[in-house]
Amino acid sequence: MPAEILINAFHMNTIGHQSPGMWTHPRDRSRDYTRLDYWCNLARTLERGLIDGLFLADVLGVYDVYGGTPDTALANAVQVPVNDPCLIIPPMAMVTQHLGFGVTCTLSFEPPYPFARRMSTLDHLTDGRIGWNVVTGYLDSAAKGMGASAQVTHDRRYDMAEDYMQVVYKLWEGSWEDGAVLADKSTRRFADPARVHRVRHDGPFYKLDAMHLSEPSPQRTPVLYQAGASGRGRQFAAAHAECIFINGPTRQAIKPYVKALREAARAAGRDPADLKILTLATPIVGRTTAEAREKHADYLKYVSHQGALALMSGWLGIDLSKLGLDDVLRHIKTEAIQSALEGFTTADPDRQWTVRQLAEHAAIGGRSPVLVGSATDIAAEMIDWVDETGIDGFNLAYVVMPESFEDLVDLVVPELQTRGRYKTAYRPGTLREKLYGHPRLPSNHPAAASRR
Amino acid sequence: MPAEILINAFHMNTIGHQSPGMWTHPRDRSRDYTRLDYWCNLARTLERGLIDGLFLADVLGVYDVYGGTPDTALANAVQVPVNDPCLIIPPMAMVTQHLGFGVTCTLSFEPPYPFARRMSTLDHLTDGRIGWNVVTGYLDSAAKGMGASAQVTHDRRYDMAEDYMQVVYKLWEGSWEDGAVLADKSTRRFADPARVHRVRHDGPFYKLDAMHLSEPSPQRTPVLYQAGASGRGRQFAAAHAECIFINGPTRQAIKPYVKALREAARAAGRDPADLKILTLATPIVGRTTAEAREKHADYLKYVSHQGALALMSGWLGIDLSKLGLDDVLRHIKTEAIQSALEGFTTADPDRQWTVRQLAEHAAIGGRSPVLVGSATDIAAEMIDWVDETGIDGFNLAYVVMPESFEDLVDLVVPELQTRGRYKTAYRPGTLREKLYGHPRLPSNHPAAASRR
Repeated sequence: MPAEILINAFHMNTIGHQSPGMWTHPRDRSRDYTRLDYWCNLARTLERGLIDGLFLADVLGVYDVYGGTPDTALANAVQVPVNDPCLIIPPMAMVTQHLGFGVTCTLSFEPPYPFARRMSTLDHLTDGRIGWNVVTGYLDSAAKGMGASAQVTHDRRYDMAEDYMQVVYKLWEGSWEDGAVLADKSTRRFADPARVHRVRHDGPFYKLDAMHLSEPSPQRTPVLYQAGASGRGRQFAAAHAECIFINGPTRQAIKPYVKALREAARAAGRDPADLKILTLATPIVGRTTAEAREKHADYLKYVSHQGALALMSGWLGIDLSKLGLDDVLRHIKTEAIQSALEGFTTADPDRQWTVRQLAEHAAIGGRSPVLVGSATDIAAEMIDWVDETGIDGFNLAYVVMPESFEDLVDLVVPELQTRGRYKTAYRPGTLREKLYGHPRLPSNHPAAASRR
Repeated sequence: MPAEILINAFHMNTIGHQSPGMWTHPRDRSRDYTRLDYWCNLARTLERGLIDGLFLADVLGVYDVYGGTPDTALANAVQVPVNDPCLIIPPMAMVTQHLGFGVTCTLSFEPPYPFARRMSTLDHLTDGRIGWNVVTGYLDSAAKGMGASAQVTHDRRYDMAEDYMQVVYKLWEGSWEDGAVLADKSTRRFADPARVHRVRHDGPFYKLDAMHLSEPSPQRTPVLYQAGASGRGRQFAAAHAECIFINGPTRQAIKPYVKALREAARAAGRDPADLKILTLATPIVGRTTAEAREKHADYLKYVSHQGALALMSGWLGIDLSKLGLDDVLRHIKTEAIQSALEGFTTADPDRQWTVRQLAEHAAIGGRSPVLVGSATDIAAEMIDWVDETGIDGFNLAYVVMPESFEDLVDLVVPELQTRGRYKTAYRPGTLREKLYGHPRLPSNHPAAASRR
């Protein structure tokens, strides 16, 4: 029996996430991101569609590479303003019972001790529906917000992340034993002190000598997400991540990457099937193919090409404002441009790709493939992606909020269900139980070494 | 017309807050602190009683001074486990419209850049109902959690706090001008970049070169709370705080302190009436005086004297387990003991105060005065406190959750209303508008210097 497809909805506590300019669409409501009911309505919609999780991106900085200023990002609401992602989760948990929440937290800028408590608190309040997307930060502007002149180097960031993970594993898995909490009114003993342990850690970057402040939450360690695409990032993900987000323009492009990730997991001593690999995509769905195309054409009237270039400049670390709109990217021999091109051009290898075309392409869905079609078209395409590449599912971006996710839930999910490729009810239990059938990380995961 | 009395309810994202052992009472529900409905029910109760705010304490450490271990605190659930206080606020905001939320955040352990965003996010999500209790941390165990061997010295902590405040004021007040957000779909401009400013700060402890990530929230700077009791703490509070929490056993004991605080505010160039001073108290209310006394007697069966000594040892920084239960405290000539005694003995100057008596006293309401009586008794006593000392109101701790706050709302508030000393409806607007009638900090507050 072919596997059921996993679906996460992709959002961010901001206005223009992956499709710059779309906040100006008459039906778009993303400007209401500061309101609790905006998020609660989204959560209800996703749970109605049995969506596995809401994945919340985050950046602790602004897109100021384009033109050397944040002006374009500000004028077009390109991932700025951006609010804290953790605080919108408990209210969404209140109005749902099953939806998972994957939250991006940049470990470079917060000490592990209070962070571990924050995650445990979220896991308690959501009854075990929390995932953590482990990010080491990628904008220089974020580093400047913390008082540094620039980021620490890429590899050093991963060394810090390794050390950080050891600390939080010890707090989550090793401080309070199972059964340490008695909570017995008759014997008047809340906890058995002999089963609560002080964590001692003396690593290259982090030191700690303290017990975890939170009692064990349903999952202890939250479900671990990672999106590292570099060699070092891939190695980190293969060792630690349970869910990995990837991105590529075509099935052909991601297939070898999926294989490499599973091999890296095996090399790290884990079961390759324990990695849930989700690829980014942006669906535009109609009741018919024609309606979807009309919708796409309508959306294109509201995109911001400048916003797209600000986003791409931040992602690539290259100021695209210095190029002419008609410059052909293939002629620019920097590694970042060529690697970006490798992404886009696989889909259309004969295209010349000017800066203008890049902007047009990225203005809907950023770097992700845009899938346009009827629910039948989209369901078939999603199934093809899964079956041809070995991914487990998708991380789906919106174009117009909440329309895109309503279309997903009302049109695409039933079509996938008809084909036997989507669940018809949530599984019981925590996020990890829903994904894997077991509540805790398996014994071959590095976190297990921190247990007593 | 005599002023209306302000009331905050005092709680913490933990089980045993100020009355150790009371979690074992048959009617106590505080063990449910990990559940969203526990907090939402509390918020609804408080709003039903027109309570001004819920004040959430926090510690990022454990009470391990008593016996040199956290064992007593763990066995009796004395402020441990303790979860993050920020995350329970958005769900409570969802089920209320007016209740304010004062949250304790220890600035020593979190960089100002992400913290400022967290507070702005809370202020957005609550429609401007956030207060921040500025704390510099007071447990060595918390410092050890951050990798330090002990805390930085008291005065240096306040120097750091001064520098920290300058950074967050600049982010909240000076980065986005009023009117910077256009959010105009027709002109397709979200923000006017000319009116969004990068904050540059190069202080003795903190450096920053970044714009604030959040657009202006209803209050910009949250309502500022402080509880510093030392000379340096008082000076900090007089300069920055809008609400100050104090604690003393009697009217006589706090009266000069209230006067000194208002004088310090005047010396700092502020209007002394702009300080709202709330004193801590723990009411035990019955429908009659006799019923209240019976309730008190019943409660006393569930207290934990050992828990109380663990709490007091942490607060005093003295291991009380090294003393005999019948040792007379007056004979112990350390400054901390004598200063603690000064608190308790004013109420009963002839008492000898053994360690056992201290434990019995502190087991309900910690160091706060316990008010036992009918609603009429309590209302009269509260009015006397306000009129005789010049305080603005109370920070009221619970003994049994939610019973204590239900008694407050159902019995005491109506009695205060009858006497014309409590509002009969919430004022409109943000927390600051409710307290002061104006939405922003006044121009004589130090935050105003960061405005453009």
